[in-house]
Amino acid sequence: MPLIKIVAERELRRTVPLDQVAVQCVEDAFHSLATKTVAMPPILRLDIKDHGGEVDVKTAYVQGLDGFAVKISPGFFDNPKLGLPSTNGLMVLLSSKTGLLQALLLDNGYLTNVRTAAAGAVAAKYLARNDASVAAILGAGIQAKLQLQALTLVRPIREARIWARNAAKAEDLARELSEELGIPVRACVDPREAVAGSHIIVTTTPATQPILSASWLESGQHITAMGSDAEHKNELDPNMIVQADLYVADSLNQTRTLGELHHAISAGLVAADASFPELGEIIAGKNAGRSNDLQITIADLTGTGIQDTAIATLAFGLAESTGTGSSFES
Amino acid sequence: MPLIKIVAERELRRTVPLDQVAVQCVEDAFHSLATKTVAMPPILRLDIKDHGGEVDVKTAYVQGLDGFAVKISPGFFDNPKLGLPSTNGLMVLLSSKTGLLQALLLDNGYLTNVRTAAAGAVAAKYLARNDASVAAILGAGIQAKLQLQALTLVRPIREARIWARNAAKAEDLARELSEELGIPVRACVDPREAVAGSHIIVTTTPATQPILSASWLESGQHITAMGSDAEHKNELDPNMIVQADLYVADSLNQTRTLGELHHAISAGLVAADASFPELGEIIAGKNAGRSNDLQITIADLTGTGIQDTAIATLAFGLAESTGTGSSFES
Repeated sequence: MPLIKIVAERELRRTVPLDQVAVQCVEDAFHSLATKTVAMPPILRLDIKDHGGEVDVKTAYVQGLDGFAVKISPGFFDNPKLGLPSTNGLMVLLSSKTGLLQALLLDNGYLTNVRTAAAGAVAAKYLARNDASVAAILGAGIQAKLQLQALTLVRPIREARIWARNAAKAEDLARELSEELGIPVRACVDPREAVAGSHIIVTTTPATQPILSASWLESGQHITAMGSDAEHKNELDPNMIVQADLYVADSLNQTRTLGELHHAISAGLVAADASFPELGEIIAGKNAGRSNDLQITIADLTGTGIQDTAIATLAFGLAESTGTGSSFES
Repeated sequence: MPLIKIVAERELRRTVPLDQVAVQCVEDAFHSLATKTVAMPPILRLDIKDHGGEVDVKTAYVQGLDGFAVKISPGFFDNPKLGLPSTNGLMVLLSSKTGLLQALLLDNGYLTNVRTAAAGAVAAKYLARNDASVAAILGAGIQAKLQLQALTLVRPIREARIWARNAAKAEDLARELSEELGIPVRACVDPREAVAGSHIIVTTTPATQPILSASWLESGQHITAMGSDAEHKNELDPNMIVQADLYVADSLNQTRTLGELHHAISAGLVAADASFPELGEIIAGKNAGRSNDLQITIADLTGTGIQDTAIATLAFGLAESTGTGSSFES
């Protein structure tokens, strides 16, 4: 019987922090997507309407990697009423040579949070002005917090604003992040106030109607929209896609059906087959990123299976090298 | 941190045998598919061509069940050269109320083998003649063995024949099953010889070209084709679908694209949208099964996510009630 490794959430939190290593790992994943043979099938989605639940399963194989992850991500939006988190799940790492189970990463969604925030950092690294120092975060959930932390890894952030529909949550998060990062973080009651004068804007909400208006945009701003990972979600005014100087997808296949681009296509503003650069192509130098400090740039992040394979591979390697986790005879 | 249950293959083999309980469990699953609200998204498939590997992920939610399974099934067909089994994998059982992880069933494909064989028993129970006593099994792998065992649970089998491309494997399996079941089991060098005079024929091969000819069929025979679970696989002469008195799918959505029906459609013998009964509809009395001892019937089984949810739920329940498996703090 083969031995497999099981790593619990508390061990993963200790072993795989949101740091430069995680950002580099996700940057390399996007680079691979543009340069290597990658098999990334469409997301499997199961809806459990009786209980307000949905489950996404994502996977990707990158040529040359020893393993690939299958990630199971449940989102049950009535859970908070039961005192439970909405999102959970695990990553299953399998050998790409034999299909044998290598590791179960029982992260309850933690690794997804890290790889999602790291993608925000990578987007800002390649698309925001080099001197970007003011960040606006829309939303006050776990990604709101992690996205701001991630930005500080790639840009000299010295001021931040938080806006959320729930003003009390925005206040709490602003206080928490201000202490943690040692910079002024202010809660705003109006999203427009948060956006004005910001260099980087990150939207992290489950909104189904735009929370950002195209008319608010200022030259030089970079926007990362990471809230939409399903057809009905929509954070950006679709006109923004057209007005921006540069629109970048994490995966064009996905943003055409699940991301902000999908809504611009539905609104007839963009042709369904219009081509845009992907983040990996910019990292690999196959497409140009921001070319001056006045451009408005948008990154549309829907979350890709290759990020999951990359972070699971990193987590497994770190767990092996630090002796973290339990061995189990399967 | 929630507690989850982890059950290893050796524990599952002890706790979930291929028996009447397993057959009833799978019968109930098909019944549910025809009578309850079931969410069963298309199979997610990842191909890893560098290593002759493929991974299927299946899932299904049945209204009213506390849990649902996500099954990860890798098949790596170069593994035997490395001394490893081709198929592996695990089932992940999640709560359908909260999405929380309930159990990891590290079955290395064992539960899939059980639920697949049990489906063969259910097909024979509803479609074969009541007095069927002679069985022919085409193939000599694990399913060849289990399908014959499963038939003995539902019909008074007193004689069996095995045919396989590899004659030595057929001989070995015939000897093994003869001892185990206490009935004469004979290896045949010609598939036609195996089929002649058999009441039930089960095809269990990964064939990509038909191994059964329509001209061999005799009145009263029932054929279960369970080898094809992918577009390129094909065990039955497509004319058989047309000639049979009754063709039954496990899931019409799936057999139209993955099963034997798919090849009859491709050959222009059957309209792409032609309707046929599903096994669950016959179990539930919504469609007629075999109506006399002269009809030729065919069951086309591609394997469904609802069988996985059913067997995983059974395994979890039996593990809980017998104190089998380990608890793990995730």
